[in-house]
Amino acid sequence: MAEAAVRRRGRGGGGAARRAERTSTAIETARYIERNIANFELLDEEALALIEDHAEQVLQEIGVNFVNNPAALQRWRDAGADVEGERVRIPRGLARQLCATAPATFTQHARNPARNVEIGGRNLVLAPVYGPPFVRDLDGGRRYATIEDFRKFVKLGQMSKWLHHSGGTVCEPTDIPVSKRHLDMLHAHMTLSDKPFMGSVTEPSRAQDSVDMCGVLFGQDFVRDNTVMTSLININSPLTFDDVMMGALEVYAANMQACIVSPFIVGGAMAPVSVAGTLVQVLAEVLAGVAYSQLVRPGAPVIFGAFVTSIDMNSGAPTFGTPEASQITYGAGQLARRLGLPFRSAGSFCGSKLPDAQAAYETANSLNMGLLSGVNFMLHACGWLEGGLVASFEKFVMDADQLGALHKMAEGVRVDADTLAMDAIREVGPGGHYLGCAHTQANFKTAFWRSDLLDYKPFETWAEDGGRDTVVLAQARVAKLLDSYQQPAMDPATAEALQAYVAKRKEELPDAFA
Amino acid sequence: MAEAAVRRRGRGGGGAARRAERTSTAIETARYIERNIANFELLDEEALALIEDHAEQVLQEIGVNFVNNPAALQRWRDAGADVEGERVRIPRGLARQLCATAPATFTQHARNPARNVEIGGRNLVLAPVYGPPFVRDLDGGRRYATIEDFRKFVKLGQMSKWLHHSGGTVCEPTDIPVSKRHLDMLHAHMTLSDKPFMGSVTEPSRAQDSVDMCGVLFGQDFVRDNTVMTSLININSPLTFDDVMMGALEVYAANMQACIVSPFIVGGAMAPVSVAGTLVQVLAEVLAGVAYSQLVRPGAPVIFGAFVTSIDMNSGAPTFGTPEASQITYGAGQLARRLGLPFRSAGSFCGSKLPDAQAAYETANSLNMGLLSGVNFMLHACGWLEGGLVASFEKFVMDADQLGALHKMAEGVRVDADTLAMDAIREVGPGGHYLGCAHTQANFKTAFWRSDLLDYKPFETWAEDGGRDTVVLAQARVAKLLDSYQQPAMDPATAEALQAYVAKRKEELPDAFA
Repeated sequence: MAEAAVRRRGRGGGGAARRAERTSTAIETARYIERNIANFELLDEEALALIEDHAEQVLQEIGVNFVNNPAALQRWRDAGADVEGERVRIPRGLARQLCATAPATFTQHARNPARNVEIGGRNLVLAPVYGPPFVRDLDGGRRYATIEDFRKFVKLGQMSKWLHHSGGTVCEPTDIPVSKRHLDMLHAHMTLSDKPFMGSVTEPSRAQDSVDMCGVLFGQDFVRDNTVMTSLININSPLTFDDVMMGALEVYAANMQACIVSPFIVGGAMAPVSVAGTLVQVLAEVLAGVAYSQLVRPGAPVIFGAFVTSIDMNSGAPTFGTPEASQITYGAGQLARRLGLPFRSAGSFCGSKLPDAQAAYETANSLNMGLLSGVNFMLHACGWLEGGLVASFEKFVMDADQLGALHKMAEGVRVDADTLAMDAIREVGPGGHYLGCAHTQANFKTAFWRSDLLDYKPFETWAEDGGRDTVVLAQARVAKLLDSYQQPAMDPATAEALQAYVAKRKEELPDAFA
Repeated sequence: MAEAAVRRRGRGGGGAARRAERTSTAIETARYIERNIANFELLDEEALALIEDHAEQVLQEIGVNFVNNPAALQRWRDAGADVEGERVRIPRGLARQLCATAPATFTQHARNPARNVEIGGRNLVLAPVYGPPFVRDLDGGRRYATIEDFRKFVKLGQMSKWLHHSGGTVCEPTDIPVSKRHLDMLHAHMTLSDKPFMGSVTEPSRAQDSVDMCGVLFGQDFVRDNTVMTSLININSPLTFDDVMMGALEVYAANMQACIVSPFIVGGAMAPVSVAGTLVQVLAEVLAGVAYSQLVRPGAPVIFGAFVTSIDMNSGAPTFGTPEASQITYGAGQLARRLGLPFRSAGSFCGSKLPDAQAAYETANSLNMGLLSGVNFMLHACGWLEGGLVASFEKFVMDADQLGALHKMAEGVRVDADTLAMDAIREVGPGGHYLGCAHTQANFKTAFWRSDLLDYKPFETWAEDGGRDTVVLAQARVAKLLDSYQQPAMDPATAEALQAYVAKRKEELPDAFA
């Protein structure tokens, strides 16, 4: 159906469609990761069953709050929950039963069907950093983000071959009123990228704007039946579902658009200080949130999310890339698979203020764990700095390069007559050298993953070239990618209609900066 | 028996022994990692069986070379191998059968029995970087290593709480003649550290010096029956065992001292360009090397080693922290476990010239893989830079800090009534905060691993403190650790005897710098 939609739009601008085809082949992009390796199973059956049992107990005995949302309370009442004020107590088993209508896997369509992603199963879809109010680059330092920064990040995402998704709020365009910035952000994703993207969640009306703009981009018929956005719905942990986030979820679920239902947890502050206790709460929250999405519309696509950090008990600061965050993520992945839902977690998490070694240690810890924990949708997969306060241009391309290694790792190992290489071992023999042998010559181009950024030169050459560190190399790569950026072609009528939608809504909406 | 030895030495200097006890409690050091988590099993049974079958075929059909070593050829002939010139063809099954006498796990004794390590099983012992001719620090840049640098690294290793082992050639003391430097290196490990260490392998006579010096340190009776060194024996891949390395192995095996039998592989150069082919060759080489150690002395402790890097086919440079190196290491770990041998691999590998983000990404990739691949002895666990050409002071403490995260990760997750934290979830309830609750207060001190190096401060505080990156923080930590270094006490008679041994051998040996 996506292909049909593109063809339909193509009829309005045949030249543009043909240019789009040429462009989409010009920029090499990986589709998404289809894992050919096992997940790492940290917890055993007994531990998982205990956590599941306790999560049900939390829902039944303690319950969750749906704040300022009488319609939600009514839905829960009708479903058989015990509602008292804003507290919803969910009888054991009910939430899990409601979750059963959520699909185990779904397609998110992009305007370029070659960029469609399958979310769930053994797949891993990588999306960039989300939410920072600040940006940083080597020359400009740290400053408030603008819409111009936002557009640059979208362009970098479009040019990053290991990134499958354009993301959402890649940074907060603080120079645009809060009431209107979702329009500019969506417009940037829709026009500067042809990868899939996320919708606005900061007001139900902005979620509706997102749906309506997708109607313009994809055609309203297409959007009615297909998922074209995956949006981030955070739970106010512990156990609280506020009306703004739930209002956005209601809009998206009703329109068959996907939501990530994601507890936002700083361990020891918004959840128990223990890994097991955090998993109990995360599971209870996700069960309630996903069940609610299915009360709004059975079958609406939804993702089991878990955003978890530990806390530095000395300073109260959140910490990233830590072993406890890994443990929680591995466990949450297991719980998501047992629930039959796609799983969102991990990312290029770090607490460092600079894209330095601390940033890279923490990020690599988190990316490796993300691959092995079975994550299906990885938000923040590149560009995250300073606990998510900052989107870094250099770190965006540094992390995006590392994502290539995840692709190779996920392929697994082919073991067959060719790869076992007996002929090569025979040909080379004891004391020989493999570089020149036939097997090496036939395979070396695809044998090893190669970074497009890191320095592999000998010391002397590297020193002659200026002795650059990774950040300086990344700065050059940012410039190179932006210089070579090509805007994916779009039917002029669609482009005009999008522009008109944004202009009209901007006139209707008041300016508000908070 | 180690305790007896220490007590015996203690009798020669009661005050020193008591001081040693006080010192050893003053410096907090982790014993070694006892994994409470599963290994990551990358290859399936069929793939592993195929690799094992092909390795046997390599040994039987192609064979291995034992160069310049008539005694080795005779041992192989006596064992039933087909020897032709220097080529040893080993009938299918024979090498594996010979390996059966090697212990699955062994104790390496330290002069401080609290620092003994158990190598094998589910344990992970961490040892520092080995072999670099250069050192680097932030102020001095890159330069040839000296014995003073060497001593500093040994002191840093002694002060690093997550490092279990003092290592071997932490850097090459290039200001000392090659013919004598093993004496100064061993003397430094023996006197400046009380952790276990490695012996010399650059000449059989130097291996004998190592054994003899251990006789002075531990008592000759003790050394006769106990393993007090684990030394690194590299195989000249492909399939070649040179007389120098084998000569050292013969000395160590005959004295019940442990050897790591380790192919040294740059994929595509010293082994096939494919992961499966490399594993075939690695297994064939280790089978032959370990079998040979058992021909020298059945029961001699030995480790299945695998040092693997991929190659950048553009420049021919070795690359580190890459997915192919991880795949080979995961597979080699599985093969080692099936063979019932301790496994050595991974480390703080990186190709970067600086301790920057590249270094940290590559290192973290390798350390995480090392933990999950079931490594029992991790050489190069900290301090490695520039493909092993450089030992970096700052990176030593940066990596050593990250090793703490491996300890926490390896503990696994406790799931019981306390950690499930129902009382806390009940106490806090929807919308509450966990920081003040009883469960958090009771557990927060041990709940989360905390770096001793990385910066967790808010941006403003960090900026006021000078906006330091990880390398600058590490420089300060190097200085702090060296300032607070305390030399472990030693019986003066032993110290004198060691000094005398070194002086005597230095007089006997010629100066040689190559």
